[in-house]
Amino acid sequence: MFREKIKILDCTIRDGGLINNHNFDHRFVRAVYKALSEAAVDYMEIGYKNSKKLFSPKDFGKWKFCDDEDIKKVIEGIKSHTKISVMVDVDRVDIDDIKPRKESPVGMIRVASYVKDIDKAISLVNHFADKGYETTVNIMAISRALDNELTECLEQLEKECKAGVIYIVDSFGALYQETTEFLIKKAKDILKTKEVGIHAHNNQQLAFSNTIEAIIHNANYVDGTVYGLGRAAGNCPLELLLGFLKNPKYDIRPILDLISNEFIPLRKKMEWGYIIPYAITGILDEHPRSAMALRESEKKENYREFYESLVGEDQE
Amino acid sequence: MFREKIKILDCTIRDGGLINNHNFDHRFVRAVYKALSEAAVDYMEIGYKNSKKLFSPKDFGKWKFCDDEDIKKVIEGIKSHTKISVMVDVDRVDIDDIKPRKESPVGMIRVASYVKDIDKAISLVNHFADKGYETTVNIMAISRALDNELTECLEQLEKECKAGVIYIVDSFGALYQETTEFLIKKAKDILKTKEVGIHAHNNQQLAFSNTIEAIIHNANYVDGTVYGLGRAAGNCPLELLLGFLKNPKYDIRPILDLISNEFIPLRKKMEWGYIIPYAITGILDEHPRSAMALRESEKKENYREFYESLVGEDQE
Repeated sequence: MFREKIKILDCTIRDGGLINNHNFDHRFVRAVYKALSEAAVDYMEIGYKNSKKLFSPKDFGKWKFCDDEDIKKVIEGIKSHTKISVMVDVDRVDIDDIKPRKESPVGMIRVASYVKDIDKAISLVNHFADKGYETTVNIMAISRALDNELTECLEQLEKECKAGVIYIVDSFGALYQETTEFLIKKAKDILKTKEVGIHAHNNQQLAFSNTIEAIIHNANYVDGTVYGLGRAAGNCPLELLLGFLKNPKYDIRPILDLISNEFIPLRKKMEWGYIIPYAITGILDEHPRSAMALRESEKKENYREFYESLVGEDQE
Repeated sequence: MFREKIKILDCTIRDGGLINNHNFDHRFVRAVYKALSEAAVDYMEIGYKNSKKLFSPKDFGKWKFCDDEDIKKVIEGIKSHTKISVMVDVDRVDIDDIKPRKESPVGMIRVASYVKDIDKAISLVNHFADKGYETTVNIMAISRALDNELTECLEQLEKECKAGVIYIVDSFGALYQETTEFLIKKAKDILKTKEVGIHAHNNQQLAFSNTIEAIIHNANYVDGTVYGLGRAAGNCPLELLLGFLKNPKYDIRPILDLISNEFIPLRKKMEWGYIIPYAITGILDEHPRSAMALRESEKKENYREFYESLVGEDQE
């Protein structure tokens, strides 16, 4: 009944790090890695590889840089088949920071890119592939991509790019299942030699269902996060994915423990999830930054005023 | 672009009443009615019509009985095209309590029934139809219905039942979109003279997406509740439905105000929504009662133990 090719990538620490400047402490990250390993999740994305020439380690936690030595401290002594992934943004990485695969604890590098930056992304990801890593390109803000440009982008990825997987990223949590179906079918149609993945945001409580929709149409790489942790509305809850997928190697129980012990207390200190201003930016297909600013202000529960401020903007 | 036949039924007070023994006060119910009216929601379900011979008004709030006089006090003086609906359970109503439509503020009566009780449901609903009401039959626990019995049930409803709408009710929040598609197509196929509706629970964050899936396959009656209020995991959030549907008559703004002013404070006193034990019963296609009991106990956050207690039960 299950499709063996489906791989789960957990990006709890990476996407959650966007809330707290990547300041998860060693103990917490190690607890997540241990639970993911016991649950047999295929990949754990631990953070970003950013250049220290562009961002100061004084201003950010260590998972904005993901030094190999820090990763080694997290994983050492834990029995695991879970591979470590790191994310790279176009124009923010120093490629000399990336050692050859054999010298690094990292197994996968994912390059996040807008459609407009795809040439840079291909150049970067091919470099990492040549260094021996599994690689992906994650096309962000897909709900805003123009169809002709997305077609060209996908054709170019199929021809020129060494990444094994291309992800559709619903950055704004704006997709409904009909558009998810359209995009995944389109990607599968063009990317004949690659796998397709999905990374969904949960603004409209559709991250899990869009992920199922992508699986129905043959996406094989799916992102989740523990208890849906992630910037703003968060992501597809890993525990729901584990409940849905039928591969007997997966075990939901270590993740249930992890939520009880770590994420219920964490949710009292950090905010993410179904919160109306994020639902509004999702409905309107907008970046959540305006909603994030609202949640930091005294007007955090003034939903109508916030909605009217967005729909009242002069768009022409 | 929009489909005019789609009607929204808000059942906030009715389904939410299952949490607090139908004890919402007059001011709160009136605020909900006012906002729904301004939002142009088609129906508001306000509670159950239960026999006072079976349940004592000392033990329950007034929305377990929905006396016409109480309803009139809620709606008087508010400009509205929103029709009032009440729900009736098989074997719990005194049909003499139901006046002819012309003498009552109620416009719609919905009869909730399991597949096995469908003969009783048809008899009841035909009686209400003869009294002049719009009527529906809501088939509960659809995820547990055997296919041959459901076929027979739907064929009987098509032949013998005067209700205009038949609802598929995902009582356990167990449906994924492929099964929703299957069930709605099946119902549409058999119920040639009736409309089909969906009432979804949100255990797995799929209530909204299952509702969209039902709409895609031509269900025209959709249930929602404000901020997803409802027993256990709650229901399809009305605000998301209003964001999705394109009928220009609907207005999301009064609902945003209502959430800010009433539901954010209420959520601090009453529990519903995405809570792991409810996700677990949804994944396992179980009634949420065991999870509700857990949430009342000291072990409320012991998710793994709860999961293991359910999967460890001897089923044979």
